[in-house]
Amino acid sequence: MKRRCLLQIQIGCRNTKAQAIFYFNLGPEEVSRILKYCNSRCLAVVPQGGNTGLVGGSVPVFDEVIINMGSVKNIISFDKVSGILVCEAGCILENLVPFLDNQGFVMPLNLGAKGSCQIGGNVSTNAGGLCFVRYGSLHGNVLGLEAVLANGTLLDMLGTLRKDNTGYDLKHLFIRSEGSLGIISKVSILTPPKLSSVNLAFLACKDYVSCQRKSSHVLLHCLFTLRVLCMEQVLNHLEGVRNPLPPPMHNFYVLIETTGSDQSYDKEKLEAFLLRSMEVGLISDGVLAQDINQAFSFWSIHEGIPEALMKAWAVYKYDLSLPIEKMYDLVEEMRMRLGPAAKVIGYGHLGDGNLHLNISLPEF
Amino acid sequence: MKRRCLLQIQIGCRNTKAQAIFYFNLGPEEVSRILKYCNSRCLAVVPQGGNTGLVGGSVPVFDEVIINMGSVKNIISFDKVSGILVCEAGCILENLVPFLDNQGFVMPLNLGAKGSCQIGGNVSTNAGGLCFVRYGSLHGNVLGLEAVLANGTLLDMLGTLRKDNTGYDLKHLFIRSEGSLGIISKVSILTPPKLSSVNLAFLACKDYVSCQRKSSHVLLHCLFTLRVLCMEQVLNHLEGVRNPLPPPMHNFYVLIETTGSDQSYDKEKLEAFLLRSMEVGLISDGVLAQDINQAFSFWSIHEGIPEALMKAWAVYKYDLSLPIEKMYDLVEEMRMRLGPAAKVIGYGHLGDGNLHLNISLPEF
Repeated sequence: MKRRCLLQIQIGCRNTKAQAIFYFNLGPEEVSRILKYCNSRCLAVVPQGGNTGLVGGSVPVFDEVIINMGSVKNIISFDKVSGILVCEAGCILENLVPFLDNQGFVMPLNLGAKGSCQIGGNVSTNAGGLCFVRYGSLHGNVLGLEAVLANGTLLDMLGTLRKDNTGYDLKHLFIRSEGSLGIISKVSILTPPKLSSVNLAFLACKDYVSCQRKSSHVLLHCLFTLRVLCMEQVLNHLEGVRNPLPPPMHNFYVLIETTGSDQSYDKEKLEAFLLRSMEVGLISDGVLAQDINQAFSFWSIHEGIPEALMKAWAVYKYDLSLPIEKMYDLVEEMRMRLGPAAKVIGYGHLGDGNLHLNISLPEF
Repeated sequence: MKRRCLLQIQIGCRNTKAQAIFYFNLGPEEVSRILKYCNSRCLAVVPQGGNTGLVGGSVPVFDEVIINMGSVKNIISFDKVSGILVCEAGCILENLVPFLDNQGFVMPLNLGAKGSCQIGGNVSTNAGGLCFVRYGSLHGNVLGLEAVLANGTLLDMLGTLRKDNTGYDLKHLFIRSEGSLGIISKVSILTPPKLSSVNLAFLACKDYVSCQRKSSHVLLHCLFTLRVLCMEQVLNHLEGVRNPLPPPMHNFYVLIETTGSDQSYDKEKLEAFLLRSMEVGLISDGVLAQDINQAFSFWSIHEGIPEALMKAWAVYKYDLSLPIEKMYDLVEEMRMRLGPAAKVIGYGHLGDGNLHLNISLPEF
């Protein structure tokens, strides 16, 4: 059999550095044998992708064997007619972008950790991210998987058909099972065609209801944040980040990205939408990115929040899914319960009800 | 508990009419008890939705108890902010359309059998249909399910969150398991906003490669058909159906539907696309629907194929998923193998590789 995969095995321990790292050049059958051995000896295993998760899922608790898939990172095939990419689990998300860009396609997944996170980890944690509202869930986009079960069985579910109705669809059990059912080794994923026109708007709203009402009109990526606690932190703690809107500060900010195939028409359409929203009072202020640099600077506000918060305080991080109309209630409820000792900040993806709740204290 | 569901139980037999039909006004707990009883006595059960499948999955083989969900058809809730519909399994697909239309949304699923098929059956068979290429798979759109297992256990997986990463996602096992794991009783589904502009084009191509090359440029619904065998049958055997294109007849026909929010701009864009495709020889001829009646008549050609074929011959029907570039190879291969005795016709959904293969003989 082909021995082209490099598998890194670490013997790790929480709060200490890995105690030993072994590199092996292994094929799936050897990976399977390692898992079989660990299983038979009751040795705990932690599968690890980019280890970018903020809730500790890929961090060993005591003396588990870490199986890190980072060296298994080949692109296996790409079908230009259907946009179906097959690759190994260790491919870093961001590294897939230029490959697909050359073929005229994009990844249906984008998230802040894209520079380190791996596609196998993305799939096993069912990552949502910034494109969720545009391209939908990985349950819709992942067409096939190969996984090695804890007992060593290699499960080949690596289909590449857009629609496959043969038998039970076991691969979905692995999506969001966080490695607990087995280690994902290969992924087949549907990638959408790249659209030439991208428009980005940065808006301010006076209340959460106004943010919400926009979400039923457009597909949007969203950032929402309380004025004093979050936007000011980003502006104070990150170099080179500026508020795109003139003073005064607003209660909520929303980022909307649209994609299409005609830059000038799409921009006009977004402008008209913003104008109407302003007329009926849904938006207090707003600005469209005029070029790629401005777009980058809008996004950097959103992507800089975790870093800005961690620079200022000790942060407890929670990642929640809620009905859209109730998303902000939780932030207010927590603020009320915890009182002035804690700083409660909520931001997230308005289109899909994903709230990043951050509770900050002077120290842990 | 609430007793509002009407469940129809038939004792059925293949090739004969149902021998007895009992109507009960039952809640989920009684449905659960019936299944538990049947399970404990080894009585076979066939769950049945609209019974529109063409491959016999909902037809009893000998003396099974049929549990038909047709009377369990209430809409339970609809969230206008997120577009999430929760309804009972017996809702007929077409009946959900006007309800959603009033709210400004559409079903992400549409198929020829929409007037009789039920949402529970659609989900349990993972129906694809005409919108698959636009709105994706039910694995991406179904957010939750309630199902009664064969042993009577009621499994509540009726989530209504766009993104839910808590535990194993068991509902996906029920999508495409065709009732073999349990009976779906309720469905929660994400419905997309209704777009005001719909454009439809009817095109002719000289070969399959030209059809295919269009699929990488636009999201499309597609009909492809061999000139002599299929298009002529539709024209000869269905009343009021006319070929939208002037003679001569062509080898392949393709139907493209686009949706957007600006009728005149979207139409211009589609016209420009067709013009370019004609200039480079991808299209031999083509016409855009000028009004809703013409659009209806274009669709009626596609939807009339099964009826037209059955009027002419005894038809063996197969429903297959194939890589797009290989879809038509199978039709040609079958035609070569079966010789002139059989008429082999292929049509289907070019965007998602779903081929309807029809093999016709003078008699069964």
